[in-house]
Amino acid sequence: MSHQSVEEIKASAIQWIKEAGELIKSHMKKPYEVDTKQDRKDLVTEVDQKTEQFFIDKILTQYPDHQVLGEEGMGDEVQSLNGVVWIIDPIDGTMNFVHQERFFAISIGIYFDGIGEIGLIYDVMDDVLYEGVRGEGAFKNGKQLNPIDPDKHLEDALIGLNNSWAIPNRKLNEEKIHDLVRKVKGTRSYGSAALEFAFIAEGIIDAYITMRLAPWDIAAGMIIVNEVGGITTRVDGTDVNMLTGNTVICANKAIHHELLDFIETK
Amino acid sequence: MSHQSVEEIKASAIQWIKEAGELIKSHMKKPYEVDTKQDRKDLVTEVDQKTEQFFIDKILTQYPDHQVLGEEGMGDEVQSLNGVVWIIDPIDGTMNFVHQERFFAISIGIYFDGIGEIGLIYDVMDDVLYEGVRGEGAFKNGKQLNPIDPDKHLEDALIGLNNSWAIPNRKLNEEKIHDLVRKVKGTRSYGSAALEFAFIAEGIIDAYITMRLAPWDIAAGMIIVNEVGGITTRVDGTDVNMLTGNTVICANKAIHHELLDFIETK
Repeated sequence: MSHQSVEEIKASAIQWIKEAGELIKSHMKKPYEVDTKQDRKDLVTEVDQKTEQFFIDKILTQYPDHQVLGEEGMGDEVQSLNGVVWIIDPIDGTMNFVHQERFFAISIGIYFDGIGEIGLIYDVMDDVLYEGVRGEGAFKNGKQLNPIDPDKHLEDALIGLNNSWAIPNRKLNEEKIHDLVRKVKGTRSYGSAALEFAFIAEGIIDAYITMRLAPWDIAAGMIIVNEVGGITTRVDGTDVNMLTGNTVICANKAIHHELLDFIETK
Repeated sequence: MSHQSVEEIKASAIQWIKEAGELIKSHMKKPYEVDTKQDRKDLVTEVDQKTEQFFIDKILTQYPDHQVLGEEGMGDEVQSLNGVVWIIDPIDGTMNFVHQERFFAISIGIYFDGIGEIGLIYDVMDDVLYEGVRGEGAFKNGKQLNPIDPDKHLEDALIGLNNSWAIPNRKLNEEKIHDLVRKVKGTRSYGSAALEFAFIAEGIIDAYITMRLAPWDIAAGMIIVNEVGGITTRVDGTDVNMLTGNTVICANKAIHHELLDFIETK
């Protein structure tokens, strides 16, 4: 993709992501007469779908030959990553959106022939935009992020790890995870994969491990993290796949390498 | 304590907490020529101590008959809670302060004859002040917080729980904690006890469990949470003690009651 195309597409995407943020916020302000669980579930579904549709309309009007792969499945049945594919999560951190009304993000990864070109993660409530463009660095609200510390090791690391993977579970040998929890400086869990990627790029946490992510959860994050020297793979060290579900470890290279020893899938 | 005294002391405390926030931020901006672990450890110790000393100077100049109990131990050897006692954590969330340069707070609880009168938690980097005054409600940046949902139960709850208590540990039967993790909607971990209390008051999370807190970690939080209908006890359901270390569960009454079934100390 040419530099000019990347810049133009990025500018459009940033404009739309901000507009979508306003759309989401306007839905949150609506009064709900009966605030039951079902109402809240309906609300998130409605806002998720409307936001995804908003992006699809904008993208396909301006770029009719692009494809859109979205969490809500309202876009294309994407079978291959040829050409330009937008991989979108309209609300990443759905549980946070519902329960907390903050700590959620819009995530957009834009891929060209399978290669991640542009990553955008927008923390809607805090109005913070993380962006990354392949080969051109990562930014937080326009300010370039420093490369993450390549010399940091696990014993000095704060890692993003939910309790789900520390208790007996179907995916991982939890005893190795217990060793990991004892080894690291500390663990955190924020409930939004996109934001946890952004936090790695920013140095807030040093690694993130999870066993269950869809392409739209990671498409933007891995581009941004890549620009500050981090890497993202499946937990066996192989490449993630943008057409299927993934297990994920993301960290600087040293920590990534160390983490592989603590991951034993069932 | 008279209403007038409470208002006057609260006004002083708010002024000082904001000034202390600026003091902390000014220290963070200092260039550090050699950014080693030891340097960072020295930095936090220095800032912690300077901030605590700042409060002690202010408090004892204006209120010479008050006592100050602080994390850094620079205040009084507090043997009883008679009279007015300020219980201060100059930087709650030390690891976040060092690693993240955000997600930490100044915590001040002001007690009169052992009863919590004023609680202040100041998220320094986000400039967010949580406050609670006994019998007068809880506020976030001046806006009154709603009572927390008394009808919410564990299966709908997001709970603050670090991985430390889900892996085999010396304090708790971890198998019961595994059952708890499976029962709740989700778990989060933010790394600052004071902020996790504030998040309960705000409805961001619904409960918080930890096995190791000092008085200064909880002194402010429990006053604020109390004002929105939450309760804080040791994990056996007994009252926390402001002169010793504590185990802690904090939640609305229904969830608090349910949580007791999942806590089995060793």
